[in-house]
Amino acid sequence: MGGLASPRAAEPVPAPALPARNGEDALTALVELVGDDLQACDRAIVSRMDSPVALIPQLAAHIVAAGGKRLRPLLTLASARLCGYPGATGGARHIDLAACVEFIHTATLLHDDVVDESQLRRGLASANAIFGNKASVLVGDFLFARAFQLMVDDGSLAVLTILSRAAATIAEGEVLQLQTQNDLSTTEDQYLRVIQGKTAALFAAACEVGAVIAGRPPREQEALAAFGMNLGIAFQLVDDALDYAANQATLGKTVGDDFREGKVTLPVLAAYQAGDEPERLFWRRAIEDGAQDDGDLDRALHLMAERGAIEATLVRAHGFATAARAALAVFPDSPARCILADVADFTVSRAR
Amino acid sequence: MGGLASPRAAEPVPAPALPARNGEDALTALVELVGDDLQACDRAIVSRMDSPVALIPQLAAHIVAAGGKRLRPLLTLASARLCGYPGATGGARHIDLAACVEFIHTATLLHDDVVDESQLRRGLASANAIFGNKASVLVGDFLFARAFQLMVDDGSLAVLTILSRAAATIAEGEVLQLQTQNDLSTTEDQYLRVIQGKTAALFAAACEVGAVIAGRPPREQEALAAFGMNLGIAFQLVDDALDYAANQATLGKTVGDDFREGKVTLPVLAAYQAGDEPERLFWRRAIEDGAQDDGDLDRALHLMAERGAIEATLVRAHGFATAARAALAVFPDSPARCILADVADFTVSRAR
Repeated sequence: MGGLASPRAAEPVPAPALPARNGEDALTALVELVGDDLQACDRAIVSRMDSPVALIPQLAAHIVAAGGKRLRPLLTLASARLCGYPGATGGARHIDLAACVEFIHTATLLHDDVVDESQLRRGLASANAIFGNKASVLVGDFLFARAFQLMVDDGSLAVLTILSRAAATIAEGEVLQLQTQNDLSTTEDQYLRVIQGKTAALFAAACEVGAVIAGRPPREQEALAAFGMNLGIAFQLVDDALDYAANQATLGKTVGDDFREGKVTLPVLAAYQAGDEPERLFWRRAIEDGAQDDGDLDRALHLMAERGAIEATLVRAHGFATAARAALAVFPDSPARCILADVADFTVSRAR
Repeated sequence: MGGLASPRAAEPVPAPALPARNGEDALTALVELVGDDLQACDRAIVSRMDSPVALIPQLAAHIVAAGGKRLRPLLTLASARLCGYPGATGGARHIDLAACVEFIHTATLLHDDVVDESQLRRGLASANAIFGNKASVLVGDFLFARAFQLMVDDGSLAVLTILSRAAATIAEGEVLQLQTQNDLSTTEDQYLRVIQGKTAALFAAACEVGAVIAGRPPREQEALAAFGMNLGIAFQLVDDALDYAANQATLGKTVGDDFREGKVTLPVLAAYQAGDEPERLFWRRAIEDGAQDDGDLDRALHLMAERGAIEATLVRAHGFATAARAALAVFPDSPARCILADVADFTVSRAR
């Protein structure tokens, strides 16, 4: 069943001492660590998104070429490396499963953009803006089905269990987000369940799969799942902070998207809960009633600064990033462990 | 990979002599044949669509309660019965897999209604009309993921292969339909590939699964797949004919939906291809340019009657229904075989 009922992984635990590196290099180091594998994964993505129905590879190429960071497949590749896969066996399961993880992610992006009516994705026109909502819904369905074909070809029921549960949990998180939209009585716990579902569940699964194909014991599978879950929560918290603080040109995001959509994220909850009655009236009008005027985003940004809402969100994110690092302690020291730990730091430091 | 590249199953083959029954009783007989199993399947559907996120069971209950004919799960249950499953073993795999087939179907219905902007489904307000497009997209995703969890719990890679391929093929068929929309240069072969994908692939998979869990030899698995594929094509051909001929109150469909959406179905292709130049101008304006006036649907119905377009479509459907019956010839005579053969007849006779 879905993972939204269990908030356990959302609780950060105290961090043991792991060596810290410059967080900003972490993503580069991650790409270098698994460079050849990542290229092989890209080739698998292109080859497996093919179809005799021309619109499918056209639309899929648009979103794949838009070139996200490939963070999720990178996590699968690096987790496999951390666990000694493929080692001398020369297996390639991590490549196809990394592609599979990216397909699931891409499918959810396509559907998210339809649901959010987004016009931009990573600074480019979104697929729905170019190809229309209908094509985005249906090609998302195709990529999702194709992801399952990749898993079935891999042939491991353990992997299928992890990724099919993640897929259900993602959808639950997205629906819960829809339920909490425009609702300022949403609790921080509910918000954490939303981001645990919509974002962190796939991070967790992407990492756990690496340990599973390497045949590592449950303790290490669980450690990588906990690493991914905490990392994903930290990542989404920072993303939600950046929606009120990002440099639009750098991030390819429109500042204030969440505000305009009435999404109840932690920055909003923190500002709302710390606000006085006139401030709360403002938030209720803007977020709950959706009655927004020209200066309202600026006022929201101002109130968030005054109430320390962004900082509070980043402190929360730092706690989860620390928990992610801590989860890696069960593994012996290695370049892969070091780089994954730094990725956790980078997740938060990118916002500073 | 998807099944759209291979049109083989779309070719009807000559029918051997099988005893014919009154087609109208076929669906009732089918329900009676597997009555207890169908009730167990309904319970599995209700129990497995549950989620701590309340909107999911609410929306899912709406579409499940709207109570389709459960034709696809019935096919899985009856195919299993035909193949001697569960027999003395008392297994229940057919129940969960029938529920899984219905989940895949329901997920595609939810997404179809968003794509088609339908307001009605089986005579009731569609889920998107009540809950909105966003919820329909996301709950569709959830049901699709849950379907895969059901398959993974079942644990058969053979079943997973069949149903994940079907899921990809459905999406390919839907995208191809989108590509051919408003395009009167669509060939009959392309049209058949559309309906083979969007409808018949799941019929085929639903039937094939019954033989697989019964451990029947490839010849029987292929026979049931061919039965389902031909049945599904016949079913969709008749559906497309009924969109221009149905009694709205009986069918819960709005006559002319396909016309208004510019869908290029066989009735339209047949009337267009048999039409003279003024008629072709009419079809191009109405279907390709989407410039429709008040009397246009009536004119379309009139032209179809004049050119025998509905009759031509039903003759094609009858050919596929006959091929479906023929595919069952590899099985020894039994009540299940007899009823499934009659279902093929019923598929066409419901339109007369």
